[in-house]
Amino acid sequence: MQTPKKSVFAMRPESNFSFQDTIVAPISAAGVGAVALLRVSGQQAFEICNQLFKSKKLADVPSHTVHFGILRDMAGKPLDEVLITVFKAPNSFTGENVAEIACHGSPFIVQEILRNLVAAGARMAQAGEFTRRAFLNGKFDLAQAEAVADLIAAETEAARDAALSQMRGGFSKEIQTLREKLIHFASLIELELDFGEEDVEFADRQDLRDLIYELRGLITPLLTSFSYGNVLKNGVPTVIAGRPNAGKSTLLNALLKEEKAIVSEIAGTTRDFIEDELVMEGIVFRFIDTAGLREGTTDRIEAIGIERTKAKMQQAGLILYMFDLQDIRDVEDYISHREYVQSFGVPFLMVGNKADVYLPDELKAYFDSVAEEVVLISAKKQLHLEDLKNHILRKLNIGEVRAGNTVVTNARHHEALVQTDASLLAVLDGLDRRVTGDFLAMDIRHALHALGSITGQISHEDLLDNIFSKFCIGK
Amino acid sequence: MQTPKKSVFAMRPESNFSFQDTIVAPISAAGVGAVALLRVSGQQAFEICNQLFKSKKLADVPSHTVHFGILRDMAGKPLDEVLITVFKAPNSFTGENVAEIACHGSPFIVQEILRNLVAAGARMAQAGEFTRRAFLNGKFDLAQAEAVADLIAAETEAARDAALSQMRGGFSKEIQTLREKLIHFASLIELELDFGEEDVEFADRQDLRDLIYELRGLITPLLTSFSYGNVLKNGVPTVIAGRPNAGKSTLLNALLKEEKAIVSEIAGTTRDFIEDELVMEGIVFRFIDTAGLREGTTDRIEAIGIERTKAKMQQAGLILYMFDLQDIRDVEDYISHREYVQSFGVPFLMVGNKADVYLPDELKAYFDSVAEEVVLISAKKQLHLEDLKNHILRKLNIGEVRAGNTVVTNARHHEALVQTDASLLAVLDGLDRRVTGDFLAMDIRHALHALGSITGQISHEDLLDNIFSKFCIGK
Repeated sequence: MQTPKKSVFAMRPESNFSFQDTIVAPISAAGVGAVALLRVSGQQAFEICNQLFKSKKLADVPSHTVHFGILRDMAGKPLDEVLITVFKAPNSFTGENVAEIACHGSPFIVQEILRNLVAAGARMAQAGEFTRRAFLNGKFDLAQAEAVADLIAAETEAARDAALSQMRGGFSKEIQTLREKLIHFASLIELELDFGEEDVEFADRQDLRDLIYELRGLITPLLTSFSYGNVLKNGVPTVIAGRPNAGKSTLLNALLKEEKAIVSEIAGTTRDFIEDELVMEGIVFRFIDTAGLREGTTDRIEAIGIERTKAKMQQAGLILYMFDLQDIRDVEDYISHREYVQSFGVPFLMVGNKADVYLPDELKAYFDSVAEEVVLISAKKQLHLEDLKNHILRKLNIGEVRAGNTVVTNARHHEALVQTDASLLAVLDGLDRRVTGDFLAMDIRHALHALGSITGQISHEDLLDNIFSKFCIGK
Repeated sequence: MQTPKKSVFAMRPESNFSFQDTIVAPISAAGVGAVALLRVSGQQAFEICNQLFKSKKLADVPSHTVHFGILRDMAGKPLDEVLITVFKAPNSFTGENVAEIACHGSPFIVQEILRNLVAAGARMAQAGEFTRRAFLNGKFDLAQAEAVADLIAAETEAARDAALSQMRGGFSKEIQTLREKLIHFASLIELELDFGEEDVEFADRQDLRDLIYELRGLITPLLTSFSYGNVLKNGVPTVIAGRPNAGKSTLLNALLKEEKAIVSEIAGTTRDFIEDELVMEGIVFRFIDTAGLREGTTDRIEAIGIERTKAKMQQAGLILYMFDLQDIRDVEDYISHREYVQSFGVPFLMVGNKADVYLPDELKAYFDSVAEEVVLISAKKQLHLEDLKNHILRKLNIGEVRAGNTVVTNARHHEALVQTDASLLAVLDGLDRRVTGDFLAMDIRHALHALGSITGQISHEDLLDNIFSKFCIGK
C-alpha cells in the first residue's frame, strides 16, 4: 500500500502565491557578520543570477559546485565579490533550481543584492515559502517541515533532539505505520458498502477491535508525551509568588546562582517582573519573580504590581508559592495559604522557606504527610534546593517519558492525535453497539483524516486509491 | 626589483597564535536564522570535520563542491543535518584547506557543533584570524584585508564602492606603482654607496627631482581624498546647537522628516542627545540635537545638559549653530554669536531660523555679504532646507573628489601617505642642498617604508595585531 509522496496541494496553486515565480531571501541571520547567505529558488534561479554574475553560466555548471565572481548591477557597477553555490532541481532544499549567494555580511550589501535580484526578475520570498515549496515538491512531509522551524528555535539539547528526530522523519514514520494499519480496514469496510445490499462482512469485527486497541496503545504514549514535548519546546513559565519578604528574590538568585534580582530587606523591593531561565533536564524554566502579595498596601505602584502578579499566576505553567516557616502559626494557617494558591487552577508547589529554624512538631508531622506538595528549603543558606528541583520535575510528569521515545512537541499534532483517539473510541463504541459498516467507515475516515493531517497527506484521495488499486473487482 | 607577495611574517610563528592550528568560528551573523555558516580552516580542516561527518571523506572530494550529511558527536548522536563545502588549499579565502559548514541557524546548534569541532581538534579562531591568515598566505595585502572590514561595515553606496575598490586592489596598485618608481632610484643610489669612495653618480639628480614631483603629484590627491574618505567611512557627527527655542529640534525633525525629537514650546525640553542619521551624497550625517545653550539656568539637570552640549560641540565634525532671526538686534549681536561658535575650533555653519519674518535691511545686507557662513531657513515651514544641505556639503569640501578617483578612507593609510610626502620633501630639500647619496638614500628609504606599510609589504607584528584585533570573530 502506498500513499503518494507528492501532496495533492501541489496541484492547486494558491491565490497569494505563484509557485512559478523565482523567489529570493536572506537565509542567514540578520545583522553584521563576515558572510551573509541569500537563497534564490525557482525555475529561473540561474538565469536571474547570471544577469548580475557574468563569470560563468550557472545552468551549465554541475550541481553542488561553488563559483567565485563579481555581482554587478545592471549598469555594470560592482556590488560585491561573492561565492555562488549551484543546486540543480530536484537535488536542492526546495526541490527547485537553487543558487545560494554568499556575500560580505553587510546589511547594506545584502539589501543592494536583493534589490538587484528583484530587478532581474526574482520576487522576495514570503515567510516559510522555501520550506513550503520543499513540502509541495515532496522533499518532506508537513511534520518534517514543521520540525525545521522547531530545530532552528531549539534552545536545549532535548528540544534539538526531538526536532531533529521529527525532521528526519521518525515521528512521520510512526504516524504512517498507524495510518497504514487503519487504511487496510477502512478499505475492507468501504468494500462492504459497495455490496451494501448483500449483507457481507469483509472486515472481521474482532480483528478491527483488536486493531483499535493496538492503535490506541500506540497513540496514548504519544499523547502523554505532549505535556513533556510542549514544555520541551516552549519552556515552563514558573512564577515565584508569596507574601513580601518570604524570600522569593533570594530563591531566584540561589537557583540562578547569580545576582539578578535586587534583594533587600525592605518589603516591596521587587516591583518589576524579573525573568531568567534555568535549564533542568533539558527543559527551559522561565522564572518570574514577582511583587510580594500584600493585602491593603497603600503604595499605588506596589498595588499595581500585586494585580500583575495575580495575572501572571493565572497564566503560569507552575507556581512556586513561598512562605516563611516562621510566619505559619498552625496547620490551618498553612492550609489557608494552600487554598489561596489552589484557587488559581495552575500546578503549584508550596515552598517553605527558612527550614533551618525551629518548627513545631505538629506542623512538621503535617508537612511530612503532604510531602508531595510541600518542600522545605532555606533559600539564603541554599539548603534542599536539589530537593526542590526534583519536586518541580515530578510535578510536570517529566520523568514519565523515556529517552528514545518519540515526543510530540507540536500542538497541532497533539490536537490531531486527540481527534484520532476520539474517532477510534467512536469506532469501538460503534462496534459495541453493532452499528452498520457505513457508520464505522465514517469514524475510521475521521481517524484517518486526523492522522493524515499531521503529515499533510490528507486522506480521502488515498483511501480511494487504496480501494481501487488493491481490491479492484472490475467496477 | 620585486617585493615578495608572501610576507616574511608567515615564516615566524607568533607567541599567541599558532598558524599550524586548525581554527573554527561562525562566519554568519549571530542570532536566529534559517541557516548559520561555520568556517573550519587549517591543514587538518577535512580530517577534523570527518570525525563528526562520516558520509564522505572530504579530503577525497574535489575542491569547491558541496556535500550533504549528518554531523554526529563523538558518541554518534546526531547534532544536525548539514551541507559542507570543501575548498582546497590554496584556493580558499584563507589559502588553507577550508570546510564551510551550513547548519540550521539555531544558536544552540551552532554552539554544539563548535564544541564538538573543538573536541575533535580545532581551536576557536581569534578576532580577524581568518583574514590574517589570508594576508599571511599572500591572498591579499594589508590594505585589501582592511577593506574587507570596511566593506562589511559599509552603510552607504559610496562607502561600499570605496571599500570594494580597495578590496579589489585598486588602491594597492596605485601604492605599488609609486613604490616601484621609487625603488628604481633607491637601488641606483644604494649602488653609489657601494662605490662610495669612487664618487660616481648612477642616479641622475634631475631625474630624481622629476620623479619626486611626479610622485607628489600622485600623492596629493590621495591625501586630499582622505577628508572625504574619512567622512565616507565614519560619517560626520553634526551638532545642532543654539539658544533655547531657536528651533533646533524642529530642524532635526524637518531634516529627518520624522518626529524623533520631542518638540515643545517650553524652553529646555531637550536634555538628552537625540541622534539620528541622514545620508546626503553617500555620506552619513549623525545629527546630534542638544540642550539649549542658556546661561545662568537654575535647573541643575539642564545645567549639566549645557555642559555636555559644549563637550559635544568640541568633538563635532560640524556645528550647525541655530539662532532665531527675531532675537538678533544688529550685526554686532550676530557677530558675537558667531565668535562664540568659532571659539570651538570646529567647522560650523550659522543657521538663521524663522527666515519668513521681517528682517532689517542692514542685517539682510550683512547676511548677503557673508553668504558662505550663514543660511537663512524656516525649520517649521521647511523653507530653504535644500540650501542648508548644499552649504553643509560645501563646508566639508566633499565636491572636490571626483567620481572614479581613488579615495583614502583609512586613517592609518593617510598617516603613512603624510609620512611619505614628508620624506619626499626631505629628498627634495636634500637635492637643493646637494647632500651626499647616503642622506638621500635614508629619506628615500623612509618614503619606501611608509608606502610599504600601507600594503603590509613592510610591517611589524604589533601593527598586524592592532589591525586584526579590530576585526570581529569570524572575519
